[in-house]
Formats: sequence, structure tokens, C-alpha cells
Amino acid sequence: MEYFLAQVGVVVFAVSGVLSAARQRLDIFSIVVVGLLTAVGGGTLRDVILNVPVFWLLDLTSFWVALGASFATFVGIRFILKLPLRLLSYLDAMGVALFAVQAIDKTLLFGYPAPVAVVMGLITSIAGGIIRDVVTHRPTLLLSRELYATPILLGGVLYVVLLRLMPSPLSRGIAMGLIFGLRAIAIRWQIFLPLRLTLKIDLDQDEC
Amino acid sequence: MEYFLAQVGVVVFAVSGVLSAARQRLDIFSIVVVGLLTAVGGGTLRDVILNVPVFWLLDLTSFWVALGASFATFVGIRFILKLPLRLLSYLDAMGVALFAVQAIDKTLLFGYPAPVAVVMGLITSIAGGIIRDVVTHRPTLLLSRELYATPILLGGVLYVVLLRLMPSPLSRGIAMGLIFGLRAIAIRWQIFLPLRLTLKIDLDQDEC
Amino acid sequence: MEYFLAQVGVVVFAVSGVLSAARQRLDIFSIVVVGLLTAVGGGTLRDVILNVPVFWLLDLTSFWVALGASFATFVGIRFILKLPLRLLSYLDAMGVALFAVQAIDKTLLFGYPAPVAVVMGLITSIAGGIIRDVVTHRPTLLLSRELYATPILLGGVLYVVLLRLMPSPLSRGIAMGLIFGLRAIAIRWQIFLPLRLTLKIDLDQDEC
Repeated sequence: MEYFLAQVGVVVFAVSGVLSAARQRLDIFSIVVVGLLTAVGGGTLRDVILNVPVFWLLDLTSFWVALGASFATFVGIRFILKLPLRLLSYLDAMGVALFAVQAIDKTLLFGYPAPVAVVMGLITSIAGGIIRDVVTHRPTLLLSRELYATPILLGGVLYVVLLRLMPSPLSRGIAMGLIFGLRAIAIRWQIFLPLRLTLKIDLDQDEC
Repeated sequence: MEYFLAQVGVVVFAVSGVLSAARQRLDIFSIVVVGLLTAVGGGTLRDVILNVPVFWLLDLTSFWVALGASFATFVGIRFILKLPLRLLSYLDAMGVALFAVQAIDKTLLFGYPAPVAVVMGLITSIAGGIIRDVVTHRPTLLLSRELYATPILLGGVLYVVLLRLMPSPLSRGIAMGLIFGLRAIAIRWQIFLPLRLTLKIDLDQDEC
Repeated sequence: MEYFLAQVGVVVFAVSGVLSAARQRLDIFSIVVVGLLTAVGGGTLRDVILNVPVFWLLDLTSFWVALGASFATFVGIRFILKLPLRLLSYLDAMGVALFAVQAIDKTLLFGYPAPVAVVMGLITSIAGGIIRDVVTHRPTLLLSRELYATPILLGGVLYVVLLRLMPSPLSRGIAMGLIFGLRAIAIRWQIFLPLRLTLKIDLDQDEC
């Protein structure tokens, strides 16, 4: 079940990569490369930083799923575009919640302390999207006002706390529920953090 | 011979990094840094993902060649700019073909399956250019309509297939010929994939 | 003392990350993520390339300091913005000087030759800032005309040369003085390298 969910996450990330790349007229292979990068980029960075074997080198399933999903998105783009974009956002939120929790488990398994695990959860679930935005030369998701990093951070902290209080599956369910729930609220009602918790400064001097 | 060709690849990548950086008025050291990143970035990423020692830490030759080429490009820029840009593109295509095949060999040598090797060939030959484009704040080569990733992917797949059918040197020659040939055709006649194999979507909502 | 200085470097980098992110109206968590990336990104890349355990996985101090500094900057932004920006630049120059020298020590300690150490000094001290600029979608510091990479390169070379001639603490002092001094001169009088040592080319054809 979880393995299946993880592949759903990979599929959704690949689709979002393809959609981002296809804003330019690109050929199928370039588009597939962006889809792949988006889908496996976050986990790759996590494993490289943890200095453990990169996950898709050990088990090619994620790789083939990402590849297939990218091709399928290319071929079936008309069908995909008929879906409400919001549906994709919800699937993305599901993938993000799952990736975060799995990365935290993996990091704890290697003996690292909880704060490191939370950071790895964050890295794994957002790095793919950041790489996607960087290679397609768009403002990265970190610059979006919509809640993106925030639910992952809060859910990650909650997860490592709950793990000390209750059995793992229950903790996972609650943490993933929080991440998905906050993202879903942000997507559905476009809710942001209160203005007091945001910051914008205007610097007089141009630094560029 | 092959060692020599690899250094030609390094030189060409360094030159392309310098040319990209020099679109802004930068000082010599900043420019050299971009040249270096472009020349060794792809191979560095490959080795980091494979979790093997980074190549230029073991043998500084590539490093010095990249450094020297970057300086030489800075000093001899007038001469370089008199060369037809197309010549540089052909040399780049040669470097790309060689880098891809060498990366595939290295990956197979470490016992990874063929699909991983093909991906590593792609990463090694395009990551340097992507890093160059990112640090010089330009649209990355993945966003170019010109065939770039495509010949490498096709040539890489052909290479790992041929390796099972015929001796290694012959396979290499054919695969490198395919990569170089497709790139050369793309450069010479600006040929793209047929429109059917490209994709461009217009999303109504601005997401940025 | 040195440990303390290193944390000052982390603080300054975190602050610069927060200031860069806050040019857009972002929420506190997104901003903190950028602060963190800026503060620990350079050292992380260094350790990944050297294939040694990433420093903040072993000792969480830098991590907490970066986190705390990012939060504090968010909360105390009015106070920070009253400081002369130049003060921040000087502190940044201090952090850069220290990071470079420490990275060189670490690299030499692992048995790598001096040129590798100089490159690692450069990577460690500028990669965090480059990551900051990339994720906030701004031109990277490599594209600034102001002296940034240059003092680090010159100071790094001087340091590895001095290490063969005199005791380590003295070498460090001189090298850090050179890096800081050159940066300070660049900040104070906005001095660049002589025009002869810069390069700008105009290419007729648009490549994008």
C-alpha cells in the first residue's frame, strides 16, 4: 500500500515537471528529462546528503515509473489538461506528505537525530520541485506565497514528536493528515499565514 | 587518444562557460570560476550520485586543463570570437558524445544496470551546461528547442544495446557517431524533432 | 574563539538569506528555509564532493544557530534594517574569509593536494550565496561586478603557500586578513579589478 502510494507521489511529481517544462515548446526527450528530475530529484539530494546509496540506483522501479509517467503525460496531455488543475495539486499534496514522512523514517533509521530527520523530510519533498523550477527558469516554489514549505515543516515536527508517544502507523497517519490537510486548505481557499507572519522588505539600493 | 579527447571536451566546456559568463562584464576570476564549473560540474554530479570519489579529486589533470582553458579563453577572447561559433558547437558536440560514452562505461564498471548508465551519461554531459546556465541566470539548455538531450539519450540507449552485441570499441564509435551526428545535423540545419513530438501548453492561470 | 567565529559566519549567511528571500512577501517558514540553505549550503556541498559526512549531520550546532538566526532576523527585521547594510557586508566578508580558510584546512586534513583545497575553500564560501540567489530567482553573486570570488581565490592560494613557510595560525591570520581586506576595500570604495582584467562580449545571435 505504502509502496504504491510512493509511486503515486513519483507519478504526480513527474506530471508536474512535464507541465512546467511544456510552457516552452520542447521536444519529448527534454520534457521527459525535466519530469524525471522533478520526480527523483528530492530523494536523490536526500540520499547524497545522508551519504547513503541513491534510492533509484538500488531499485529502478521509481525510475521506470517516473519515466513512464513523463511519457504518458506527454502523450495524454489533452486528457491531463482536462482534469481540474486543483486535482493535480491535491495529488501533489498527497505525494509531498508521503515523501516527507518516508524521508523522516529513512533518516531516523540511519541513526540521525530528529531535527535532521525533519530537515530531510523537507528537502526530499521540496527539492524536486525546486530543481524543476530552476531548470525551467521560473521563480522557485519557495517564492510562492502559498503555504508549501510550512505544512511540511509543521507536519515533520509533529511526526517526530508523535513517534515518541504512540505507535508508528498512527503517528504517520496523523502527520500525513496534517501536511495534506494544511496544503489542501491552502489550495482550496488560497489561505496564507497571517500577514504578521510574513515579511517583505524594500531595499533602496539595487544590488544586482 | 581517448584521454586526449576527454581533455578536448573539458576545454570546450570551459570555453562555453567563459563565453556564457562574459555576457556580463565580469572580472577574470569570476569568469574562470564559471568556466571551471561548466567543465567539471557534470562529472562531479555523476560521481556524487554514484557515491564514488569525484574524478578531479583523484587526477588533477582535468582541473588544470579546465583552469588553463578558462584563462586562455579570457586572454585570447578576440581570437576565439573570430572563430565561427558553429565550430565551438561542433567541438561541444564532440565533447558531449565522449562524456556520455565515458560516463556509461564508468557506471557499468561499478556494476550498475544499463538504464542507470544511460541516465548517468545524460547527467554527465548536460549537467555542466545546466549549472553554467543557472549560475549565469539564463534559461537552461533544457529549454532550448534545439536537439540537445535527445541525441545523448538515443546514443546512450544505442550504446548499451550495442555493447551486448559487439566489441566495445566498435560500439563506442557507433554511439559517439550517432550523438555527434544528430547534434551536428541540429547545429548545421537547425533541425528539430517533428512538431508532433513537441509540446507546448498555455495555462490560463498565472502560478507565479 | 574560532568555533565562535564560525558561528558568526553562519549567522551572517542566514541573515543574508532571509534578507534576500524577504524581497518577496513570504511567510516565516519559507524565509527560514532560505536562511538555512544559505547558511549551511556551502559546507554541505563541500562535504558531499569530498565524500565525507556532512558537517551539520554530525554536530547540530551550526544548524540550530542558522535556524535561530533566521527566526531572529524575521522577528527583528526592523532592527536589522536600521543597521547600515555595509555592516552586514563586512560581517559577510568575515564569514567568507573564515569559511574559506576552514574549508582549506579540512580538505588538506583529508589528504587532498593544495589546489583541491583552494577550490574547496571557494566552493564552501560562495556556494551558500549562489544557492540563495538561485532559489530566490535572482542573478547569482558570480554575476556581480564587485570583487567576490577573487579575494577568496587569492587568499586561498596565499594560504596554502604560506602553510609551507610558517606556522599555521600565522598563515591563517594573514590569509584571512587578505580575503577580508580585499572584500572590505571592494565594499567601502566599490573598487573592481582594472577594466583590462574584465571581459564582456556581445554575441549577435540570440541563443535563448
